[in-house]
Amino acid sequence: MGEGTTQHRNDAGIATAIGILAQRFGERLSTAPSMREQHGHTLTWLANQPPDAVVFVRSEDEVRDAVRICADHGAPIIPFGAGTSLEGHLNAPSGGISIDLSALDQIVAVHAEDLDVVVQPGIRRKTLNDQLRDTGLFFPIDPGADATLGGMAATRASGTNAVRYGTMKDNVLALRVVDARGEVVTTSRRARKSSTGYDLTRLYVGSEGTLGIITELTLRLHGLPEAISAGICPFASVAAAAEAVILTIQSGIPVARIELLDEVQVRACNAYSKLTLPETPLLLVEFHGTEAGVAEQAARFGEIAEDLGGGPFTWTTRAEERTRLWTARHDAYWAGLALRPGCTSFSTDVCVPISRLAACIAETKADLEATGLIGPIVGHVGDGNFHVLPLFDPADAAEVAKVKAFVGRVVERALAMEGTASGEHGVGQGKMKYLAAEHGDAAMATMAAIKRALDPQGLFNPGKIVAP
Amino acid sequence: MGEGTTQHRNDAGIATAIGILAQRFGERLSTAPSMREQHGHTLTWLANQPPDAVVFVRSEDEVRDAVRICADHGAPIIPFGAGTSLEGHLNAPSGGISIDLSALDQIVAVHAEDLDVVVQPGIRRKTLNDQLRDTGLFFPIDPGADATLGGMAATRASGTNAVRYGTMKDNVLALRVVDARGEVVTTSRRARKSSTGYDLTRLYVGSEGTLGIITELTLRLHGLPEAISAGICPFASVAAAAEAVILTIQSGIPVARIELLDEVQVRACNAYSKLTLPETPLLLVEFHGTEAGVAEQAARFGEIAEDLGGGPFTWTTRAEERTRLWTARHDAYWAGLALRPGCTSFSTDVCVPISRLAACIAETKADLEATGLIGPIVGHVGDGNFHVLPLFDPADAAEVAKVKAFVGRVVERALAMEGTASGEHGVGQGKMKYLAAEHGDAAMATMAAIKRALDPQGLFNPGKIVAP
Repeated sequence: MGEGTTQHRNDAGIATAIGILAQRFGERLSTAPSMREQHGHTLTWLANQPPDAVVFVRSEDEVRDAVRICADHGAPIIPFGAGTSLEGHLNAPSGGISIDLSALDQIVAVHAEDLDVVVQPGIRRKTLNDQLRDTGLFFPIDPGADATLGGMAATRASGTNAVRYGTMKDNVLALRVVDARGEVVTTSRRARKSSTGYDLTRLYVGSEGTLGIITELTLRLHGLPEAISAGICPFASVAAAAEAVILTIQSGIPVARIELLDEVQVRACNAYSKLTLPETPLLLVEFHGTEAGVAEQAARFGEIAEDLGGGPFTWTTRAEERTRLWTARHDAYWAGLALRPGCTSFSTDVCVPISRLAACIAETKADLEATGLIGPIVGHVGDGNFHVLPLFDPADAAEVAKVKAFVGRVVERALAMEGTASGEHGVGQGKMKYLAAEHGDAAMATMAAIKRALDPQGLFNPGKIVAP
Repeated sequence: MGEGTTQHRNDAGIATAIGILAQRFGERLSTAPSMREQHGHTLTWLANQPPDAVVFVRSEDEVRDAVRICADHGAPIIPFGAGTSLEGHLNAPSGGISIDLSALDQIVAVHAEDLDVVVQPGIRRKTLNDQLRDTGLFFPIDPGADATLGGMAATRASGTNAVRYGTMKDNVLALRVVDARGEVVTTSRRARKSSTGYDLTRLYVGSEGTLGIITELTLRLHGLPEAISAGICPFASVAAAAEAVILTIQSGIPVARIELLDEVQVRACNAYSKLTLPETPLLLVEFHGTEAGVAEQAARFGEIAEDLGGGPFTWTTRAEERTRLWTARHDAYWAGLALRPGCTSFSTDVCVPISRLAACIAETKADLEATGLIGPIVGHVGDGNFHVLPLFDPADAAEVAKVKAFVGRVVERALAMEGTASGEHGVGQGKMKYLAAEHGDAAMATMAAIKRALDPQGLFNPGKIVAP
């Protein structure tokens, strides 16, 4: 299938670059096998392909130096944040240097009046929100993992509340990026909008380190909601739950989160988190607003659910009950694994137009059954995005092959329904093979032309997204 | 100053292309002077630089044919929608062929469940919303002029309700674009989000026809609000009004529109629209939501205004009163002109972080006074975006020079405050000279590299945004 294949290696150039980097960075250049392996870390079935060395940088100037040294000697460059990506984004199929940005973890400036914050790329999202708490503002994107903001921008991350707050594409105002010449590109100003020039911000968001290294981000912030209500609503079928989602969004209820758990996932959560949720498809919903507003939103959602035979919708504004609810959702992955002791899984995701969501999930569930796999399904269904976590024994080659084929069918099904191969996990190595089918030859040629124009040597994260 | 300068012309190639286009398109190829002048139309001081011919296309295949013929003979290509742009976007400094897309004005498909619509590029926004009315959905972006959707995407348009619904960047889901080879690039699928590959959608949005011709758009729709409230609130100063805007947005009130009129503009509107508004800085605001929701939002805004010494805030949910209010806002340009009979004006716009808005407007008003110009100010202040309309006598060369210098200072002031040279009017010819100061050399080099990669001959709308 091609993913994870080792590419041509420029051994001499890499060795020379490592020698010069060692002089420049001293002990902050590591070639220890464990360090290299950890920096090629991946949560797929893809084999680990470690970089040849890891450099721990402490400033944008050091990023520029490292890039220039690598570029001078043709050594591949792979930016590293927290290592939480899921599709082999960090593997080094052509070897090269991992540039670890985790020490660049500071808030540079908070502009509370402008609802923005300037941060270094290595800051993690939980730390950012902890440090913002006193301002009454927060950064909403929550991909589950405690990722770095640089990595979240690079992979165009989203998560549970994208339905209300958008994805990284909507919440990055500006970037500083070190390009292939070692120059710093500033993509935009702090103004909320601009119509001057090509949208470089959005070009780098989602480029997975293939066009440059993000060294600073200006992010949009949002006011912490005055009140939050959240609740659980059971439905007889995934189709009825999906219909409730469509009506909720069509009627303009500004739902902050609307998550689907199928009955397999609910059973797993009950067992793992000691809950007594009804073991049917469930929607977990959350509303942000004023006290009166969140009560009204919850009431209107409850009416929609009831009209579709769902409910009862039980909701609360009490913080501790909400936390218990969302903890179960956040533990869904671990709960799923516990369904079959000793097995492993990985989460694949696709996204379809919301009108196709029920059909896409129903066919996926039938496929799981026909294939003899257990695979809980959870989804950010307000966006038409869902995850399936097929469980398998990694030591059983036949089962691994079965899961790979199943994941391929999930993607093909989504593409056939005008969807995308990934709503939020990205391409990495794992989904490169689907890109041409999704985007078409002309778009792929356009992406390749951009890659060649901005990275003529093809050194930034080679073997990801697009062949130059 | 360079703008509007005639560039190198490939006369022989253009003549050959016109000959072949005439064979292919018959009477739909026009070289009539009036037609050519109208297609180089511009609402700035820039001199008219008409294309050599205009082709009226009726299908995407015809766009491909026209582009291929032009590309084969090195003839520049300028896409034309409605001719409502403001910065000389349609001028033809190197001559060439205007491709008129206004006959491509159909809705291709409405997907009500998915809240999206697929349209041809020549449909105008008022027609689109008229045709959508029965669905209960609408397309929110309103740049004032009844522009085409293709043109609005190409210039990254926004308008009065961008503060709530975003700009074209946020409301285009996917595009079909005819590229320099005459191939059709599809930028995305209909899924609400995707993390697969470079964001070509956002690259073309705002590219002003310099990278390709948009031949189809998939747009996000929004539910028509159940209730709307709108009102007027006077303030003692622009600074107090700006502070009210900041607090409104910080406190999470989902204001749909929040527009500032300075006292000069209010005086003009009173005279022109026979109104009796208080002649102080005013905010015009509008809220969308449920009946209870819009009442609550209006009440909370009123409290904020009162705390800042503003008010009384008078608001209504009655449709005819709201229409009267917004008609005055929409007529602001004509009202401004009427302040000085026989003069002309043009609207320039900048955008700054909202914390700098009051200072930016105050300095601009002082500049107007020092320069001896009358210039009403109106602004989409929720975004930090404002327009100033200096009035001048176009026959008075000294006054024209004075206005040009003033506009330059408006832009420089915005840039000095971390703002942008244009929040929504775009670059065209008029603002090219400010781009390097705004974006820096590395970003300009990146834009030029993208331009060269996607349009190697430099034929798409030459002399705009970036020199290849």
